[in-house]
Amino acid sequence: MEVGVYLLHRLEELGVKSLFGVPGDFNLGFLDLVEDYPGIEWIGNCNELNAAYAADGYARIKPGSVGAVLTTYGVGELSAINAVAGCYAEIVPVVHIAGFPDLEMQKKKPIMHHTLGDGRYNIYTEAAALITYSQTTLNNPDTAAAEIDRVLSDCALQFRPVYIALPTDVAYLKIASDRLRIPLPRAAAPNSALAESVVIEEIVKLIEQAKGDVAVLVDVGAVRYNVVEEVKAFVEETGFPVYATSMGKSIINEAYERYGGLYIGQLTRPEIKGMIEDAKLILYIGALKSDLNTGNFTTKLDVARTVELHAATTKIKFSEYPGVGMKALLPKLTSALSPFDKSQTLSIHVPKWTYPLPQEADEVISQNWLWSRMREFLKPKDVIVAETGTSAFGVQDIPFPKDAVFVSQILWGSIGWAVGSTLGAALAAREKGLGRTILFIGDGSIQLTVQELSTMLREGLTPIIFILNNTGYTIERAIRGENRKYNDVANWGWTSLMKALGDVDGTRSKSYTVKTKTELDSLLNDEAFANAGVMQLVEIGGMRKFDAPYVLKVSTGKGETW
Amino acid sequence: MEVGVYLLHRLEELGVKSLFGVPGDFNLGFLDLVEDYPGIEWIGNCNELNAAYAADGYARIKPGSVGAVLTTYGVGELSAINAVAGCYAEIVPVVHIAGFPDLEMQKKKPIMHHTLGDGRYNIYTEAAALITYSQTTLNNPDTAAAEIDRVLSDCALQFRPVYIALPTDVAYLKIASDRLRIPLPRAAAPNSALAESVVIEEIVKLIEQAKGDVAVLVDVGAVRYNVVEEVKAFVEETGFPVYATSMGKSIINEAYERYGGLYIGQLTRPEIKGMIEDAKLILYIGALKSDLNTGNFTTKLDVARTVELHAATTKIKFSEYPGVGMKALLPKLTSALSPFDKSQTLSIHVPKWTYPLPQEADEVISQNWLWSRMREFLKPKDVIVAETGTSAFGVQDIPFPKDAVFVSQILWGSIGWAVGSTLGAALAAREKGLGRTILFIGDGSIQLTVQELSTMLREGLTPIIFILNNTGYTIERAIRGENRKYNDVANWGWTSLMKALGDVDGTRSKSYTVKTKTELDSLLNDEAFANAGVMQLVEIGGMRKFDAPYVLKVSTGKGETW
Repeated sequence: MEVGVYLLHRLEELGVKSLFGVPGDFNLGFLDLVEDYPGIEWIGNCNELNAAYAADGYARIKPGSVGAVLTTYGVGELSAINAVAGCYAEIVPVVHIAGFPDLEMQKKKPIMHHTLGDGRYNIYTEAAALITYSQTTLNNPDTAAAEIDRVLSDCALQFRPVYIALPTDVAYLKIASDRLRIPLPRAAAPNSALAESVVIEEIVKLIEQAKGDVAVLVDVGAVRYNVVEEVKAFVEETGFPVYATSMGKSIINEAYERYGGLYIGQLTRPEIKGMIEDAKLILYIGALKSDLNTGNFTTKLDVARTVELHAATTKIKFSEYPGVGMKALLPKLTSALSPFDKSQTLSIHVPKWTYPLPQEADEVISQNWLWSRMREFLKPKDVIVAETGTSAFGVQDIPFPKDAVFVSQILWGSIGWAVGSTLGAALAAREKGLGRTILFIGDGSIQLTVQELSTMLREGLTPIIFILNNTGYTIERAIRGENRKYNDVANWGWTSLMKALGDVDGTRSKSYTVKTKTELDSLLNDEAFANAGVMQLVEIGGMRKFDAPYVLKVSTGKGETW
Repeated sequence: MEVGVYLLHRLEELGVKSLFGVPGDFNLGFLDLVEDYPGIEWIGNCNELNAAYAADGYARIKPGSVGAVLTTYGVGELSAINAVAGCYAEIVPVVHIAGFPDLEMQKKKPIMHHTLGDGRYNIYTEAAALITYSQTTLNNPDTAAAEIDRVLSDCALQFRPVYIALPTDVAYLKIASDRLRIPLPRAAAPNSALAESVVIEEIVKLIEQAKGDVAVLVDVGAVRYNVVEEVKAFVEETGFPVYATSMGKSIINEAYERYGGLYIGQLTRPEIKGMIEDAKLILYIGALKSDLNTGNFTTKLDVARTVELHAATTKIKFSEYPGVGMKALLPKLTSALSPFDKSQTLSIHVPKWTYPLPQEADEVISQNWLWSRMREFLKPKDVIVAETGTSAFGVQDIPFPKDAVFVSQILWGSIGWAVGSTLGAALAAREKGLGRTILFIGDGSIQLTVQELSTMLREGLTPIIFILNNTGYTIERAIRGENRKYNDVANWGWTSLMKALGDVDGTRSKSYTVKTKTELDSLLNDEAFANAGVMQLVEIGGMRKFDAPYVLKVSTGKGETW
């Protein structure tokens, strides 16, 4: 079996059904193998950054799987590096495969195209090493299978991006396929048994002492480290009130009756803030304490009343238990508590998270009105991608329907990410039979990566793209330079875009401009729009230049009246 | 004076009138200073990769100046890294300024947005160090001016990209402006006088022995190291036949009567190949011996008859003279030969480079016909940007008019580069009063970076964009997988593109589709088209899937009949 085919088998084993990327002369040979491989479809992207964003979005929708992106040597892989770094930051398992010069060339180091002209052939691998968990250059066919297994295992177990440099000739060298009989390890190292039993005993004791007043706070680690089912079983068994951080939004079904909404430090809704901060015990699952995930470091969780569950460690108050990870711990904890007497717990009322449509006299589409109205439009199982900026803040103002999935990049925050990510998310959603994929993005952000809408069209995907047109970078206006020219962007002809990007005869997409509450409202009420079966783009125009979702206005000090 | 303003003064001194980039919260403060600074205009781009490509194209059109690009921390700068690496490979002086966290944040290392979440705040600077000549992080106001001067001097003297990390707070710290009274050094270190006199003596002797049979071969180093005027003076004084490499194309005015065309090893036109390879003496100026600049390493220049002039060294036959650079050497060599008796030299006839319109019976726009026809369309002083792929090969088949400028990326070869580069080139061409800026690009390549057409429109630039629509990556089809799906790209509605990208009412651009020789011919003959005063986009459709310019067909072994 060719080394390249071995790699494809392993990728398929890790759940890859779509491989993203851009062809280049250092990966064309491998691409022949990809095109002939039945289990994986090649998704040719418009550029490499978008391709890697797509792999990111794909992996997010399929916890337990990885995403994969293929680029060419130098020019291709460097174009993707920002997206791969984003996967590192946000704990998204993506395999970056880069075409690499053949063995002869590596020895002779000629001044080849795509090199820096100075013989430093390994420089891009060095760059990749800065932002990936592990790396390999497959120069030796004798170790290629083992090396592939090593880095792919790292990707699957550590949930971080990895990098594989694949020389053009080595992709075709034949190796034994024996190793494929042994599946890649998918379970993390088992917990240290003694430490784990101490941890369970401690936590059970704390729960008993809390007499039902336990707040569970679910953060992004729960989905990234693939413990969503374990968390759900735990909260259902106990009936504890449960909340999410910004990055943890939608991990717990937001229609769940014991779910109270988002905890974002000082930006938290007053009716739930105290219920979390003053609970006798706080169980904080999968914490990632970044600035925008903590209301700019304003979360106030008393360490003396907090237990933190992490991927490979547990913290109980002031002590740490390394080697006790939540994946194995949570089911045992649930069992230890079962059957759990919920009577005390259920006496704590969890206020329902609502966001009624604000009554505004004018027709201008305000941010407050927009997100509330969108709340009514969303359906169970929708996949909701929100770009960094007003969109990612806006959706935090509203609860999602049952089993809707929130996809955003709140730590890395690379504008433009959401377009590529929507492509990957929509493909994964189609595979998994999820609902509609809906993107919320600003007119500034979409310009970075706009061409990837054409790939969605080509692949027959049917996302709904809402473009919030406020003629500039609104989040930056909120931060600084609200009247500066540098925050303005060119106004595009949004309803001509889909035609330009490939829907030449207008049969495969629909585009709309709405500029008033009435127009948007009637569009959203239109059943034909809600279930169009084609890709749709909606320009939401006429928005105020100075307006932002509540959370953004407050966190940037603009105040509610900006 | 603020550190940021000091930096702007120095950039202006180095010829920067346009600063490219994308705003982000780590550079907004500095952007206030930029917007208030009279000598430099902010050109906000759609994304960072395109911005850095634009800085690259800008610097190429202004030898002796530098280009500059501003990005934000992490997400922004990593998106630009491929373009900056390309500047390193292709010897283009570009200053990359990246917004950086303030001093307090650097000390405390919180989990900030745009970080990897692990406290490695300097990781992007490490990445930049791999592909730039020098770097600085301006953490200390006491040394900031000296540090700015150091890296900017490196940029200007070494003609390679440099990197400046500018912390948000330091941009506003006040420093003395005294140093501005001393201009940055612009001349390389002087040649070692004794070695230089030996070199001149040796070369003069070799020239005398050659009895007029001297071939001058001009390569890209001549323009990158800013010795174009010195080379011109030398060839005009001596009358030696002069040729160019692929990357050296247009450095010598291609209408010059002693200019013979391109030397590309085995791909060279037969009527001149021997005149170079068999000359008694070959003067090779500014050599960069990359694969695609040497006909895939098929140049045959006998070392025993070759003198190579480089930026910082001279090679005479088998000996090397470090410390003798061409900038100072060439004028002295010209003087030493002056007045030069041209009688022997001029007895050598230099065949005129022509490319008559091929007589073809059908109306399909073939590559052979296309480039020949374009030759007639081009005008003196036009700036011709050719994308890596069929376009960069195609223009090598034809001579350009007097003082037309060729811009391409033959070593780095990053597809998509040409769009951003055209923006920068067109701005620089406007500054310098050059002719039209004309881009040749394929339908595959333009998809990578297409959004930057909108910036050209916004800036009132009037380039002509020719899109060769052959429904895929033609250069890759020539290399491998000619019938593979991975080489196909989605077909776009090209004539709707300018409207989508901002020409909403259709007054600021014109778009055309031509599908036959007759249609293209009459468009090119139309004076209103040739001097439109607005941006124009021409889709050249109906081209054969399997067809390429002569040089590409031969070099990929497809043969002339592909």
